[in-house]
Amino acid sequence: MFDFLQQIAAALRIPASFVIIEFIGTMAFAVSGIRLASSKRFDWFGALIVGMATAVGGGTIRDLMLGVSPFWLTNKIYIICCIVSLLWVVIFGKVLIHQKNTWFIFDTVGLALFNVIGIEKTLQMGFPLWTAITMGCITGAAGGVIRDILINEVPLIFRKEIYAMACIAGGVVYVTCYKAFGMSAELNALFSSMVVIAVRVLAVKYQWHLPVLKGDESKDEEG
Amino acid sequence: MFDFLQQIAAALRIPASFVIIEFIGTMAFAVSGIRLASSKRFDWFGALIVGMATAVGGGTIRDLMLGVSPFWLTNKIYIICCIVSLLWVVIFGKVLIHQKNTWFIFDTVGLALFNVIGIEKTLQMGFPLWTAITMGCITGAAGGVIRDILINEVPLIFRKEIYAMACIAGGVVYVTCYKAFGMSAELNALFSSMVVIAVRVLAVKYQWHLPVLKGDESKDEEG
Amino acid sequence: MFDFLQQIAAALRIPASFVIIEFIGTMAFAVSGIRLASSKRFDWFGALIVGMATAVGGGTIRDLMLGVSPFWLTNKIYIICCIVSLLWVVIFGKVLIHQKNTWFIFDTVGLALFNVIGIEKTLQMGFPLWTAITMGCITGAAGGVIRDILINEVPLIFRKEIYAMACIAGGVVYVTCYKAFGMSAELNALFSSMVVIAVRVLAVKYQWHLPVLKGDESKDEEG
Repeated sequence: MFDFLQQIAAALRIPASFVIIEFIGTMAFAVSGIRLASSKRFDWFGALIVGMATAVGGGTIRDLMLGVSPFWLTNKIYIICCIVSLLWVVIFGKVLIHQKNTWFIFDTVGLALFNVIGIEKTLQMGFPLWTAITMGCITGAAGGVIRDILINEVPLIFRKEIYAMACIAGGVVYVTCYKAFGMSAELNALFSSMVVIAVRVLAVKYQWHLPVLKGDESKDEEG
Repeated sequence: MFDFLQQIAAALRIPASFVIIEFIGTMAFAVSGIRLASSKRFDWFGALIVGMATAVGGGTIRDLMLGVSPFWLTNKIYIICCIVSLLWVVIFGKVLIHQKNTWFIFDTVGLALFNVIGIEKTLQMGFPLWTAITMGCITGAAGGVIRDILINEVPLIFRKEIYAMACIAGGVVYVTCYKAFGMSAELNALFSSMVVIAVRVLAVKYQWHLPVLKGDESKDEEG
Repeated sequence: MFDFLQQIAAALRIPASFVIIEFIGTMAFAVSGIRLASSKRFDWFGALIVGMATAVGGGTIRDLMLGVSPFWLTNKIYIICCIVSLLWVVIFGKVLIHQKNTWFIFDTVGLALFNVIGIEKTLQMGFPLWTAITMGCITGAAGGVIRDILINEVPLIFRKEIYAMACIAGGVVYVTCYKAFGMSAELNALFSSMVVIAVRVLAVKYQWHLPVLKGDESKDEEG
């Protein structure tokens, strides 16, 4: 089992301990998608697709933009994580509400890790620092946007949640520590992840919101 | 005419007989998109775009993920098929309902062929077997998802239809015959296509449905 | 300042005068997205993302299809244009309605330029003439489609506006002048841009509409 994790870790160029966190994060994202799909009365297949889109959608958009094959095409573990998540929701559907805090923590830890993975992958390919921050944010938050498009809702992160901003905060910390202090990748990953987690937890606890944009309410112009 | 078909067939590395089926399938997919667009009172251009997205959208996503240029960018025949489909709906709009069974057959045969094309293209590029099954399913079913997003509806295949599952059944049969029995590509294409067609026809005839996912109906968690 | 513009112009292989027009067009597109987001009560971050999707979404889809990295990943000026647009809407929100005609002109000029950029980039990569017209149209019009998907509305250009058709008209003129008359890129850009602007302005002035597709109104078929 440990060999298996180390091989994946080596292939992904991340520390072995990250692999377990990545699976947990993938499942937390998938569960979020599957639960929203279930509230729309999707069938099992539809729920699985929404779960997968939530879990791997952000990384897929990042990889397409960076010009590489989506990461989950060559490693079936991600689809397996999503199928396990579907079974979990099928089995624990009624009591999932009691696991709410656990899944919130998993989801937040996953967000932090996805952000770091996106940043490091982008930097390794030689893109500028601000592109890395952007790609970290896309890796963490775009899956939720695709999920909301698939269930035909206005994306939640555009209206309510400090979710993408937590990624951007973590990303700014990462590139600052990387460029200004030459911090090692491992330490930097840990440190910027803690920033993401802290911002997200505090935002939920104290109900932080970004200001709502008040427009002119007219719709007579089009572009 | 036959030379022309053979050239396309050679370029696509598929038997010449497949090319005609591919055009029929493309038109059947486009007609499905154009008809749904018409029910939303789209103009001709909007209907054409929805038709094209339905017909070539799945293959486009597959090609982007595989890292190659979308197949329809270098061969104008696909756009021509979609324009012919638009004219067909414009001319036969009122009586199209009487052609229902014909278009259902065309659509199902197209689905089966698109699935095989997706599988073979993915295998030729050296991806794993399960990736090929996934890409076959995306080639066949993702166009309909894009169509439903464009007309602002919840994607139908997530709730009602045994459509993607037919692709997956055909895909499993294909890779099994390919790997376990070393079946030739031509025979395998025919055989797995028949599986897709059979599953889809039986699913509609006997109203097969996947189980609907019953969730906790709560929406208080977000990820 | 002029050196800076010339460097960007050289990098983008377009005349220096185009760069200023490109920024104005980018901001006009972003403002259109941000204003629609504000009518949906998005927060600042959501509005910025919708603005960016409107401004760079079409070029991103074009670049992904052509197999190159999205143009805005290596030049932060586009994100800066979108942030400036957000600040503009925040500051001038109440009186933006009085700037309506100005933004309409900026938006139309931007559309014309985006169309030309898409056409020239596609031709430079060796694709056929009709692919260049298609890519010009995608560069100009697809951002608005992504915008409407993100705010969960049926894309406006599919029902109301002569927007994509203006691009296609300009594209046909461009490739004709390029192929038949060997017109220089600079002159051709100017000439085809004037066609796009003329078609769009006349379409709005005289309320040109494409015919609405009248279908059979039935939804009993699926593909």
